[in-house]
Amino acid sequence: MIVAMQDVADEKQIQQVIDHLVKMGFEVHRSTGARQTVLGAVGAVIDFDIRNLELLPGVQEVHRISSPYKLAGKGFRPEGTIVKLANEVSIGGNEVVVMAGPCSVESREQLFATAEAVSKAGAKVLRGGAFKPRSSPYSFQGHGEDALKLLREAGDKFKLLVISEVMEISQIPMMLPYVDILQVGARNMQNFNLLRELGKVRKPVLLKRGIAATLEELLLSAEYIMAGGNYDVILCERGIRTFETYTRNTMDISAIPIIHKLSHLPMTADPSHGTGRRDKVSPMARAAVAAGADALLIEVHCDPDKAWSDGAQSLYPEQFTKLMAELRMIAPAVGRSIE
Amino acid sequence: MIVAMQDVADEKQIQQVIDHLVKMGFEVHRSTGARQTVLGAVGAVIDFDIRNLELLPGVQEVHRISSPYKLAGKGFRPEGTIVKLANEVSIGGNEVVVMAGPCSVESREQLFATAEAVSKAGAKVLRGGAFKPRSSPYSFQGHGEDALKLLREAGDKFKLLVISEVMEISQIPMMLPYVDILQVGARNMQNFNLLRELGKVRKPVLLKRGIAATLEELLLSAEYIMAGGNYDVILCERGIRTFETYTRNTMDISAIPIIHKLSHLPMTADPSHGTGRRDKVSPMARAAVAAGADALLIEVHCDPDKAWSDGAQSLYPEQFTKLMAELRMIAPAVGRSIE
Amino acid sequence: MIVAMQDVADEKQIQQVIDHLVKMGFEVHRSTGARQTVLGAVGAVIDFDIRNLELLPGVQEVHRISSPYKLAGKGFRPEGTIVKLANEVSIGGNEVVVMAGPCSVESREQLFATAEAVSKAGAKVLRGGAFKPRSSPYSFQGHGEDALKLLREAGDKFKLLVISEVMEISQIPMMLPYVDILQVGARNMQNFNLLRELGKVRKPVLLKRGIAATLEELLLSAEYIMAGGNYDVILCERGIRTFETYTRNTMDISAIPIIHKLSHLPMTADPSHGTGRRDKVSPMARAAVAAGADALLIEVHCDPDKAWSDGAQSLYPEQFTKLMAELRMIAPAVGRSIE
Amino acid sequence: MIVAMQDVADEKQIQQVIDHLVKMGFEVHRSTGARQTVLGAVGAVIDFDIRNLELLPGVQEVHRISSPYKLAGKGFRPEGTIVKLANEVSIGGNEVVVMAGPCSVESREQLFATAEAVSKAGAKVLRGGAFKPRSSPYSFQGHGEDALKLLREAGDKFKLLVISEVMEISQIPMMLPYVDILQVGARNMQNFNLLRELGKVRKPVLLKRGIAATLEELLLSAEYIMAGGNYDVILCERGIRTFETYTRNTMDISAIPIIHKLSHLPMTADPSHGTGRRDKVSPMARAAVAAGADALLIEVHCDPDKAWSDGAQSLYPEQFTKLMAELRMIAPAVGRSIE
Repeated sequence: MIVAMQDVADEKQIQQVIDHLVKMGFEVHRSTGARQTVLGAVGAVIDFDIRNLELLPGVQEVHRISSPYKLAGKGFRPEGTIVKLANEVSIGGNEVVVMAGPCSVESREQLFATAEAVSKAGAKVLRGGAFKPRSSPYSFQGHGEDALKLLREAGDKFKLLVISEVMEISQIPMMLPYVDILQVGARNMQNFNLLRELGKVRKPVLLKRGIAATLEELLLSAEYIMAGGNYDVILCERGIRTFETYTRNTMDISAIPIIHKLSHLPMTADPSHGTGRRDKVSPMARAAVAAGADALLIEVHCDPDKAWSDGAQSLYPEQFTKLMAELRMIAPAVGRSIE
Repeated sequence: MIVAMQDVADEKQIQQVIDHLVKMGFEVHRSTGARQTVLGAVGAVIDFDIRNLELLPGVQEVHRISSPYKLAGKGFRPEGTIVKLANEVSIGGNEVVVMAGPCSVESREQLFATAEAVSKAGAKVLRGGAFKPRSSPYSFQGHGEDALKLLREAGDKFKLLVISEVMEISQIPMMLPYVDILQVGARNMQNFNLLRELGKVRKPVLLKRGIAATLEELLLSAEYIMAGGNYDVILCERGIRTFETYTRNTMDISAIPIIHKLSHLPMTADPSHGTGRRDKVSPMARAAVAAGADALLIEVHCDPDKAWSDGAQSLYPEQFTKLMAELRMIAPAVGRSIE
Repeated sequence: MIVAMQDVADEKQIQQVIDHLVKMGFEVHRSTGARQTVLGAVGAVIDFDIRNLELLPGVQEVHRISSPYKLAGKGFRPEGTIVKLANEVSIGGNEVVVMAGPCSVESREQLFATAEAVSKAGAKVLRGGAFKPRSSPYSFQGHGEDALKLLREAGDKFKLLVISEVMEISQIPMMLPYVDILQVGARNMQNFNLLRELGKVRKPVLLKRGIAATLEELLLSAEYIMAGGNYDVILCERGIRTFETYTRNTMDISAIPIIHKLSHLPMTADPSHGTGRRDKVSPMARAAVAAGADALLIEVHCDPDKAWSDGAQSLYPEQFTKLMAELRMIAPAVGRSIE
Repeated sequence: MIVAMQDVADEKQIQQVIDHLVKMGFEVHRSTGARQTVLGAVGAVIDFDIRNLELLPGVQEVHRISSPYKLAGKGFRPEGTIVKLANEVSIGGNEVVVMAGPCSVESREQLFATAEAVSKAGAKVLRGGAFKPRSSPYSFQGHGEDALKLLREAGDKFKLLVISEVMEISQIPMMLPYVDILQVGARNMQNFNLLRELGKVRKPVLLKRGIAATLEELLLSAEYIMAGGNYDVILCERGIRTFETYTRNTMDISAIPIIHKLSHLPMTADPSHGTGRRDKVSPMARAAVAAGADALLIEVHCDPDKAWSDGAQSLYPEQFTKLMAELRMIAPAVGRSIE
């Protein structure tokens, strides 16, 4: 930590700050220049509220110099993490993995028709929601465990792995037999109790960025899961909230190269939620792969016009097939491939 | 709902949109002008994704005309809601109620010293956290039920009501005997499962606005609680995330008069979280009362420099006393009083 | 325009709104449903402040249904605009055009070395700043007309067209002999006096999106130029301001497909300003082409470490050459080419 | 400046950074801790792009420790600046000064009726626009010098000082004889050429915060004016752009106490533009005074329903009179008065 003193700060104020830092367990280095004094505080104190220093008399600015996350940081595993799944699929390696499927599981017919289509087009993972708490209390809320069973069955039939969203601690044990990846939604990115429990399971977790979360906060949430011993964390950009209202969210494509610099964890993108409109999904999916995304999460529905939720952002199967062909052309430009 | 067709839309496209609306259960009114056709759809369909219409050929724009919330809207109770609590305290009436106390309950000594100070200064409700899931996995996480017991004891001793934050459904029954108001934090504003459960209890709920939530979304979350039959919802502004980084959040004071126009529910403000810095708390508390806030939620600590969490945004007891005196001068300018 | 009345609005209030609309020159269509009345106002009134209606008693919501821009809208030229330049270069056609060069013109050596490098790599247009009003009053402010002369000379020598930024009305006549495209920077996007003057010239204008401008506002600024008779407007995304602070701006890649839907004007991207960091420029340049950008604007410097401004976001010539090779692989995926 | 090296940085990388800093003119202090090395760079180099350091190998983070503004900073004049105007009015002293008047000067009748009303209610300065470049090219653009003459005449008649907005360098000499304060609008906050010229005049300048400007950027723009020798700069909050769309802008009331901490310049507020809606102006004006604003800028129109621009955010004269009475009750709570 660095504490810059005001140029008018007197010796007593400087000593008070030094004493405060020493008491907190830091080792302090002092640099006195012509205009001002700067204090460097080094040490192993991980949880420290820098505002306590900012408010001391004579203090101008305080900067934290070590990132507040360790396990999620690049330095922990500079070679990068490859999350290995069944069917010889892995995320973070050479292949860009595409996960696709409906927003929510509505029926066996809907799910199987969609699963067959996305499998044929080249998807490796089937997505589908079993629990759908919605922003309106008057909406469809999901089929629960029945949906998970159908997902597993469809996945096995069409050689697809399964990803589905977990919303509550109580759902974890029930979901484990059915899914290959547990997904944490944007609204739960800082549900720390849930993250802590997911640190105890031994299944990969795909963690979505909250709509108002900085990338540092995303990594800190990953740290929560990893601190429990579960290192198979996959990060996902799905749009942030900005002043622009034409799209539901502004998909932050730059998050992909930034996370790749700051962290060793795989970074993926969800252009369906990132834009909220079907006609923007393909351009943003292509952009994500061009920017280096390790995987994509895309909503596809066998009949989007009749979808019970998020039909407007679901691709038609033929659109998805066309998109896959485009992605196969782009991947080599970043040294990747799509099977 | 209003659907404006593009000026180049042909009759077939217009009919397709009309058919779609009728099939959804709407009654459709058509206006054809010199340049374009506009369709008005009226009906009782509450949950409808307008994007499905936006994507139809020939459609230019779609506007929802009725707000998606009913119970939380002004029309439901135009005279305004007054939430009645014990000790003849009520929120939403003539008096501006001040709720104060430490960020988290650390010890009996800390809590009682703080409670005594805020009670003397004129606070009516004691606040204090029992569960503290923190953004870092390496921090103090709260004393749980022991903290709640201390809150109740301190409240009873110093004639203060008690408010504390609920983080999970499982905590609700445990908390009910101890608290007078259940607080929902910003991160849980869209934890719909939790909101639904809170709709079933018969205790007032103070619902904080999420840092990226629009005011419409705040009202929709209130609707979730009210839909369960619990109409005693108190709303709270506590800062939103913007590009300005000097403060943790930008406290949106205008939310106070806006909510008072859109809703009958009491609107309160939390300047401690709204600014994140002790030296900004008093100016923003005064601003909130001047703008018409029904109540304030303020962090006060008997010894902020030693606080285990959020000390930097906690007032010293003497600052709080001074603030109360200032608020008593401001309240009459908006036709209110503070005892 | 659509005016939705409150369900409690009475006949007198409805009549007052109708009278108001008629007086403004609108033709009014009335739809009365079971719950509420909706008024449709159609007409040629272009400049109208809808807030005047919102404040009338009994009004619930007002929506503008026709976009406030006409010439910039898709309907004006559905086949799309191709801006034709010299050297058989055109923007908006099949080829993705790359414009590259230093942030500011520093010296003949610097400019010519950079121009040669970008020309060899495949750029078609040379960029370079002649006027550099900086956010600090203590910085280098540009070489003015001397810089423009060098740009023209270097462009002619290496078969590159020239683009440079105009900052003030008084600079327009001086710049015209030297440049092929006049660039309007983000800070001037709403300098309406400047835009109006640019409407009178007969040179293409590249208009950058302001850091806090919605896409509708960008199109309205294009309308300003077009209203003067200059239809050769090229739009450019260069990052918007959000809460994320890791990058200077958040580059909104989705602006590319959105503008392509709303407007016939070519849409380009500036990943250098969009990210502000050299190591993020190539990923975002690739993403922009994958999302359908018609052209790119990229800062390249023959020796970025010695650049007088924006060296940190300038590519090394060899990075630019590598990027061009990647872009050539991506363009065919969107049916485009790069020579 | 502080440069924190990565924990894996080797001695060669550290030396490279030190050499770079020394070459730039900094004096370097080195602190080597158990985990990492931190370099403190002290010196008089004002204009330096820290990104050049961030990109050097081995560098983890770079922090600027001295603020990039000097003259605008608190330390330059810790006792605070009081801007003295004619009629014994001053801004920054004990009295809260209210500036009021129409958005634009429409006619002698309109202006004089409004001026009389605001003068009677207690305003000290008359505001009114002479130049109105609007976001639509099809709108009323202002009466120019005729409007200024009317402002002066009305001001003199009703004992009001005059403030009006300057939009271009060329307007400055023409405006000087008519106005007491030159106003710079939000869109021109970073029009550095204009700011530099305003540094040369000897009239107070009221500088509005841009809708996407940080407070540091606002102070840097003030620095531009002050660097030219004009120290009478008055700052003004008028709303920033956020994701909330209910109001045009989100008025950042916390900017008032923050500027008062960072700078010696008077800080004022414009609740009319800050909210964009008449019914929110009074609550936000009260909030601004309660938070410590030195002055207010409020749009009042003798007949808002017929206003040519911004009628929707203009107060009726009787609303303004009521507001002044409320403000007189609030001012003493912050140790201020309103005559």
